[in-house]
Amino acid sequence: MKVSNFLVALAFLALASSFAIAYDPSPLQDFCVAIDDASSGLFVNGKFCKDPDHVTADDFFYSGLNIASETSKQLGAHTNLLTVDSIPGLNTNGLSIDRIYYEANGGLNPPHHHPRASEILTVLEGTLYAGFITSNPDHRVFAKVLKAGDVFVFPFGLIHFQLNVGKKSCSCHSSIQQSKSRSCDNSKYSFWS
Amino acid sequence: MKVSNFLVALAFLALASSFAIAYDPSPLQDFCVAIDDASSGLFVNGKFCKDPDHVTADDFFYSGLNIASETSKQLGAHTNLLTVDSIPGLNTNGLSIDRIYYEANGGLNPPHHHPRASEILTVLEGTLYAGFITSNPDHRVFAKVLKAGDVFVFPFGLIHFQLNVGKKSCSCHSSIQQSKSRSCDNSKYSFWS
Amino acid sequence: MKVSNFLVALAFLALASSFAIAYDPSPLQDFCVAIDDASSGLFVNGKFCKDPDHVTADDFFYSGLNIASETSKQLGAHTNLLTVDSIPGLNTNGLSIDRIYYEANGGLNPPHHHPRASEILTVLEGTLYAGFITSNPDHRVFAKVLKAGDVFVFPFGLIHFQLNVGKKSCSCHSSIQQSKSRSCDNSKYSFWS
Amino acid sequence: MKVSNFLVALAFLALASSFAIAYDPSPLQDFCVAIDDASSGLFVNGKFCKDPDHVTADDFFYSGLNIASETSKQLGAHTNLLTVDSIPGLNTNGLSIDRIYYEANGGLNPPHHHPRASEILTVLEGTLYAGFITSNPDHRVFAKVLKAGDVFVFPFGLIHFQLNVGKKSCSCHSSIQQSKSRSCDNSKYSFWS
Amino acid sequence: MKVSNFLVALAFLALASSFAIAYDPSPLQDFCVAIDDASSGLFVNGKFCKDPDHVTADDFFYSGLNIASETSKQLGAHTNLLTVDSIPGLNTNGLSIDRIYYEANGGLNPPHHHPRASEILTVLEGTLYAGFITSNPDHRVFAKVLKAGDVFVFPFGLIHFQLNVGKKSCSCHSSIQQSKSRSCDNSKYSFWS
Amino acid sequence: MKVSNFLVALAFLALASSFAIAYDPSPLQDFCVAIDDASSGLFVNGKFCKDPDHVTADDFFYSGLNIASETSKQLGAHTNLLTVDSIPGLNTNGLSIDRIYYEANGGLNPPHHHPRASEILTVLEGTLYAGFITSNPDHRVFAKVLKAGDVFVFPFGLIHFQLNVGKKSCSCHSSIQQSKSRSCDNSKYSFWS
Repeated sequence: MKVSNFLVALAFLALASSFAIAYDPSPLQDFCVAIDDASSGLFVNGKFCKDPDHVTADDFFYSGLNIASETSKQLGAHTNLLTVDSIPGLNTNGLSIDRIYYEANGGLNPPHHHPRASEILTVLEGTLYAGFITSNPDHRVFAKVLKAGDVFVFPFGLIHFQLNVGKKSCSCHSSIQQSKSRSCDNSKYSFWS
Repeated sequence: MKVSNFLVALAFLALASSFAIAYDPSPLQDFCVAIDDASSGLFVNGKFCKDPDHVTADDFFYSGLNIASETSKQLGAHTNLLTVDSIPGLNTNGLSIDRIYYEANGGLNPPHHHPRASEILTVLEGTLYAGFITSNPDHRVFAKVLKAGDVFVFPFGLIHFQLNVGKKSCSCHSSIQQSKSRSCDNSKYSFWS
Repeated sequence: MKVSNFLVALAFLALASSFAIAYDPSPLQDFCVAIDDASSGLFVNGKFCKDPDHVTADDFFYSGLNIASETSKQLGAHTNLLTVDSIPGLNTNGLSIDRIYYEANGGLNPPHHHPRASEILTVLEGTLYAGFITSNPDHRVFAKVLKAGDVFVFPFGLIHFQLNVGKKSCSCHSSIQQSKSRSCDNSKYSFWS
Repeated sequence: MKVSNFLVALAFLALASSFAIAYDPSPLQDFCVAIDDASSGLFVNGKFCKDPDHVTADDFFYSGLNIASETSKQLGAHTNLLTVDSIPGLNTNGLSIDRIYYEANGGLNPPHHHPRASEILTVLEGTLYAGFITSNPDHRVFAKVLKAGDVFVFPFGLIHFQLNVGKKSCSCHSSIQQSKSRSCDNSKYSFWS
Repeated sequence: MKVSNFLVALAFLALASSFAIAYDPSPLQDFCVAIDDASSGLFVNGKFCKDPDHVTADDFFYSGLNIASETSKQLGAHTNLLTVDSIPGLNTNGLSIDRIYYEANGGLNPPHHHPRASEILTVLEGTLYAGFITSNPDHRVFAKVLKAGDVFVFPFGLIHFQLNVGKKSCSCHSSIQQSKSRSCDNSKYSFWS
Repeated sequence: MKVSNFLVALAFLALASSFAIAYDPSPLQDFCVAIDDASSGLFVNGKFCKDPDHVTADDFFYSGLNIASETSKQLGAHTNLLTVDSIPGLNTNGLSIDRIYYEANGGLNPPHHHPRASEILTVLEGTLYAGFITSNPDHRVFAKVLKAGDVFVFPFGLIHFQLNVGKKSCSCHSSIQQSKSRSCDNSKYSFWS
């Protein structure tokens, strides 16, 4: 069977990382800067907002996306994902971004999906094999080898992956339609690890 | 008055570029690759889709985002905007991206808004003064000086701008919650030009 | 350049006001009457709701739309805007309304936009020049001279304006797709004032 | 039983009219002026759009809302409803408006609902008894007697009514969150006629 | 008049029950299990969520849908409606279900509508006459006699009904696009009872 | 690693079936009965509608959900999925349903997800082990053993599964928030087959 064979093949490789975005209701005011009010003990669908009178430019700001993060190293890929958890001003704006570094010799972001997100990947440097798989029953694979300046789209909710097929490390920017709360909403299937 | 003074001040500068994204309904199938079927003479809210049996990986692909575009040079800023017009697979996925190059000595992307879009800007190199203005009646300005690796959010529908305040050129990636049809949906107010 | 010239020309006139509406999620119960619970110190995307057991018909009621308001006099236009702040029962119903009075001799509602709203204007009496401008790069102007009983639409998020071009005062009703929280979400560019 | 008694009581009165609005996806371009392309034999969820190059200001314009319409006279109420059928530029902007004239001596707009719409009513002149009924199992009635300049909200999807309780005729403006296609989407229950 | 006659005819019958679902924003995290936090005295559009760390499988579980409920017996129909009130994990997932038992000899679920819901009915056993009525001005009736294994759709917001036209009792499953808070959002018009 | 071990364990079992639903824009008219107009050669996000004048009750009807289908037999589970492809009147109403038969001795519906759907499962007869897995990085498993009359929810977009753990066959009804076009949008990972 095509997909299962494909997945088995991938499982023999050394592996990598990823990123995503939720489909959100649009903002109902100029901004709703996310805040965790642990003291209230309350939770809503999404996030509570900061008092708008206390909002500053720093709520819309992050510094250091170009610095490699060690927080989510897996299978030879390191990701630096900026969601509403990192930039509270992203809340209700439906966007997240990610910077990914793939190690040489097969840095892999294994097949996974984002339950509530689509994604665009831009290769900054290196050579990457990236693609996605359509849903049941077709399971068609759409994939390309990408080089610096190339861009690829992973449609909403579909399983996708990236593999460093170059001899050098690779880095990417990823734009994600997401302002999600809590953490990264991707489901990664490490069933070969 | 604060905002008007601010705008007058900006108007004396040599100026710049931009990018944006629409709020879209989510996809109702794995993908709806955009197609212009001029022969049909019909238009819908959004885009018609390509026959899914004819869709290929190239519909989700673009090459050359890292190559400076001359198509929208204004006031010392050059933008390379990838919407559904450039990557038909973006359709219904709610995302666009942009690469912007700001000339040294005040390359400017003048105050403008995107009627149906929010945006995240990432500085690749250079020094940029970027910000946005809240809506009537407050007209508060939220702005920062950004350097390489810095990120800034422009909330949905609000007026925003960027100005190269460094002595060298500056380039950015911009992620936009948009898969819009036709062209860039930003309204740029060149009322000083 | 067409739009900038147009704006410059308008800037020489004595001037005016406006109104708008947000794109909201639909209600999840029969009603969610807005309430500001300052004591909680919490904010959500939109508004908290009043305890439904305490809701009365007065929460859906306002008296005096036909009385000229002085609260937002600008450039010879007086507006009386009813949003969720005036009628808490509007919350989650996606509507606001407005009554506007334009002084004789050029009462003006200057070019502005509503980041999250469309609008229909109905002239009750007088003669009004009203229009809107499409977004970048086309900047097409759609405008008409309106008389009593005439109606004009300002699409979602686009810049629009009205000018009293009659010798007598003018008044209008405006219907706005909005139930927004906080205040009027229009961005008015008083860059000539 | 409270509601049934209420309805029975109303059924003895001479009766009246109404108006409403759909919950629509937001526009994906500056405008999507509705067009019926009968020649195509195709139908979509909503409406096809006019070629944007052929759109004019008249597509956003209507003249004569202040002229009484005879098209939907019922039970002593005459309505002049402007939906996307009357003003094609309303399409995708989520708004309709209505002008209603209630005859003296009990002009009635009988209990009805709009499956996909909320509404605000403004009394221009006369005295009107207006209200709505919450859904099962509570069936609470929220109603008020309204005079000129008074405003009342009918929440999304709930059954509502108006009755001229004055000795003179009454007229109203109604703002509706709707850009619906085809015709007025209200279900009026003339079960007493 | 066709509909009124139809309704009058139905009114002479012994009668029945129902079910429905709201149009909700999509979830912004993996789940938002509903919780009523009466102690907070706060209400939102929808429901507050349970602390995700305390969520268990039981929040997504209900036992006994196959047991006849006496809670909403009306006109010879008994319904067992499972909304977010019964299964808190349904919150933000846009679904409710219902099991209905119609007594022999005309068990009736009288004409009613759900302000924010569509529905699919599946007959488990018995013979049922089910249908819906389109909105003003057409008032077309779409109805069928259904047997075990038959399925019928009631579109969003439209008035609909079911009548046991068999000599034995009848039972159904009903799937409803709804995760609504509070209680069942159907408006049932018992104006004949 | 917990999830991978869990998946490996499942892979040794004889296996099964499933179902799902899309997040759709709400209907803009009373109904939009789906139609495939192959002759037009056009595709939209969703489906074209049938001419409303030609719509009949049969467009909202299906007969035989209680008859076992052989169309999607896999791993000992047989599903009979009714989407907009089977019942065109489901279009824009956001619902699908499914009947599933699990063979004795481990009939399995293997771990899979629906990119744009949530689901409620109701056991009609038999004993089923059903559950879902949260997204990265937590990968928490929520699962229960279900008997006749038991109900379980699978949240939007998350990976889920069912396994017949009884000695007899098992059958279920599944309600899905979906009116999707084309075919079932579930991604099933038969990576062990």
